[in-house]
Amino acid sequence: MRLRNRPWAKPLIEENPQYVVTEPEKLRGKWQERFGNENPIFIEIGMGKGRFIIEMAKKHPENNYIGLEIQTVAVGMALKKQLEAKLPNLQLVSANGAGLQEFFEENEVQGVFLNFSDPWPKKRQEKRRLTYKTFLEQYKYVMKEDGHLEFKTDNRGLFEYSLASMNNFGMIFDQVWLDLHDTPDVEDNVMTEYEEKFSKKGQPIFKLEAHF
Amino acid sequence: MRLRNRPWAKPLIEENPQYVVTEPEKLRGKWQERFGNENPIFIEIGMGKGRFIIEMAKKHPENNYIGLEIQTVAVGMALKKQLEAKLPNLQLVSANGAGLQEFFEENEVQGVFLNFSDPWPKKRQEKRRLTYKTFLEQYKYVMKEDGHLEFKTDNRGLFEYSLASMNNFGMIFDQVWLDLHDTPDVEDNVMTEYEEKFSKKGQPIFKLEAHF
Repeated sequence: MRLRNRPWAKPLIEENPQYVVTEPEKLRGKWQERFGNENPIFIEIGMGKGRFIIEMAKKHPENNYIGLEIQTVAVGMALKKQLEAKLPNLQLVSANGAGLQEFFEENEVQGVFLNFSDPWPKKRQEKRRLTYKTFLEQYKYVMKEDGHLEFKTDNRGLFEYSLASMNNFGMIFDQVWLDLHDTPDVEDNVMTEYEEKFSKKGQPIFKLEAHF
Repeated sequence: MRLRNRPWAKPLIEENPQYVVTEPEKLRGKWQERFGNENPIFIEIGMGKGRFIIEMAKKHPENNYIGLEIQTVAVGMALKKQLEAKLPNLQLVSANGAGLQEFFEENEVQGVFLNFSDPWPKKRQEKRRLTYKTFLEQYKYVMKEDGHLEFKTDNRGLFEYSLASMNNFGMIFDQVWLDLHDTPDVEDNVMTEYEEKFSKKGQPIFKLEAHF
């Protein structure tokens, strides 16, 4: 979802280089150094306003989290939350996630989260979907062998596409949910802003957990 | 779904051996001989009252169809329809589909249909689900290399399970539908009795087309 411009976002990001990385390629292979520990690193591609990744970082201090987002305004909004929370295990990245291999070394990442990615519904937009094979190649490259991908969406077309795309790529499915909020034992689920809004409307949320 | 007993079913089957096979193991490797042609053979495991397989046989005279069903009463009801339609490209099998390799030779079948199979929802019933790996092994054995499996259900739990089970078995997904009747260009879909009833209630019908 495109957000309207907020003039404060860019200056706020520039004032807080301790929380927001604007040149992630310079940290390639050095992210654990940046965190100052050897804990596993989980990344979210397209964190939006950051609620999910911030909640995850709060809930799991034993892990490191990195939220990537292309929209400066969204990064600014996530940063506001981080300025309150001051989580040492969370870094925000204001950059385009398209070149993931340039930001992370091979096997540098333990897990990848994709939450409510843009569905790009038209056939000619297929290559932009974050579950298109060229993106899966990137996740495979940056993730450790025992790493997992977690993908949530409310978009039926994108989920149908992604099941076939990930299967065709050779990914192994751990579990599939076709109505996450109507499934017993999901109290562990951390919701995004978007997810809360849509699941309250009664729309099913789809989820896939898979590995390479 | 279990049907109440109909005393006419068994005698009717016995009177019509030209349409109903009760000892399919005797036709193993000889089904095309039985049909008297070399057209490809498609089978439905659990045809119920037979509406789907009869419609398919009507629509595609260029193919042969075999409907397998364990419940004698259901076979009787399918047979009544066949006695009206008199389709030369349709055979009914009154037998338990569990031993598929005993009924068909390797590569004897072009395609397998699973429609609204019993969900066996309890964890301890997993092995009975028709998408459990031991059944997938059987489909792989009887199907030609370029054969396809088509699976439809309205049961979310069974579909979630089956996506993971078929993926884990190494099957390749051709297409996934998470609400078949709300998808453009499905006018080719042949409905089962059950499917019509449930989709009219607005329940989504799930479908997976896949191959080995």
